Amino acid sequence: MNIARSDPQLYFEDFPVGEVFDYGSYEVSAEEIIDFAREFDPQPFHVDEEAAKASMLGRLCASGWHVCAILMRMMVDGYFGRTASMGSTGVDEMKWLKPVHAGDRLSCRRTTLEARISAKRPEMGIVKFRWELVDGKGERKADMTGINLIKVRGTR
Amino acid sequence: MNIARSDPQLYFEDFPVGEVFDYGSYEVSAEEIIDFAREFDPQPFHVDEEAAKASMLGRLCASGWHVCAILMRMMVDGYFGRTASMGSTGVDEMKWLKPVHAGDRLSCRRTTLEARISAKRPEMGIVKFRWELVDGKGERKADMTGINLIKVRGTR
Repeated sequence: MNIARSDPQLYFEDFPVGEVFDYGSYEVSAEEIIDFAREFDPQPFHVDEEAAKASMLGRLCASGWHVCAILMRMMVDGYFGRTASMGSTGVDEMKWLKPVHAGDRLSCRRTTLEARISAKRPEMGIVKFRWELVDGKGERKADMTGINLIKVRGTR
Repeated sequence: MNIARSDPQLYFEDFPVGEVFDYGSYEVSAEEIIDFAREFDPQPFHVDEEAAKASMLGRLCASGWHVCAILMRMMVDGYFGRTASMGSTGVDEMKWLKPVHAGDRLSCRRTTLEARISAKRPEMGIVKFRWELVDGKGERKADMTGINLIKVRGTR
């Protein structure tokens, strides 16, 4: 485990609008898909290879929430763990475009859509990102937009 | 583990617009918060009690994605596990309104916002729900809207 750093290196200014940043390489295993789903999303096509074959998806696939959790892990490892984060208020939109299967190698593309400093809290930047999750063939698996609150450099 | 049933009982017709349904009772533990975060969201205020005290949140709190996973688990146990689901295309909006702490007992309120049968696929209902996650004091912790695809009764 890499715990996020307490001495952040990236601030609001480091996320300019229009920037595209590719990061991450995460191979999803069948064991992990089943473990997550047994705990949080025990639908047959997430927890059982045979049941998945008989389902409309035809193969074991990861819970959509597992996909979100993997996206988060890649964010923390890729940049967020060294970012002066002030949290997040939520997600504007999350689309699960294609099933994620065991053996898929995922990576992420982040695009900065909007960035402004809060009028009420001048130490807080409000940044809207888009995150696209792609597999090794470049096929898009998920597409998410949402807000991160990020500290302005040099403020208290 | 209760695996979702392969003999569904609930179909599109069982989710009328305007219906409000309360379900679930899930107590979140510190151990679970830390376990989830170590794997998927290793930010200090999710994985370490002491670091959390020093953070702006002041206490250990669950990853937002852990909150989503808990919401999903309550859905599966509450009704989705016996629903003729045809999947989900995603989430329209996910708001994390308040931090979720160890010891919080969560429950869920589901409201059916819209329901229609697909014009292209008459066996498929498209239902828009709102899910509100509340704690034992009735404080809202999260608010999500999204689409579930649910089979129309008696179709193939």
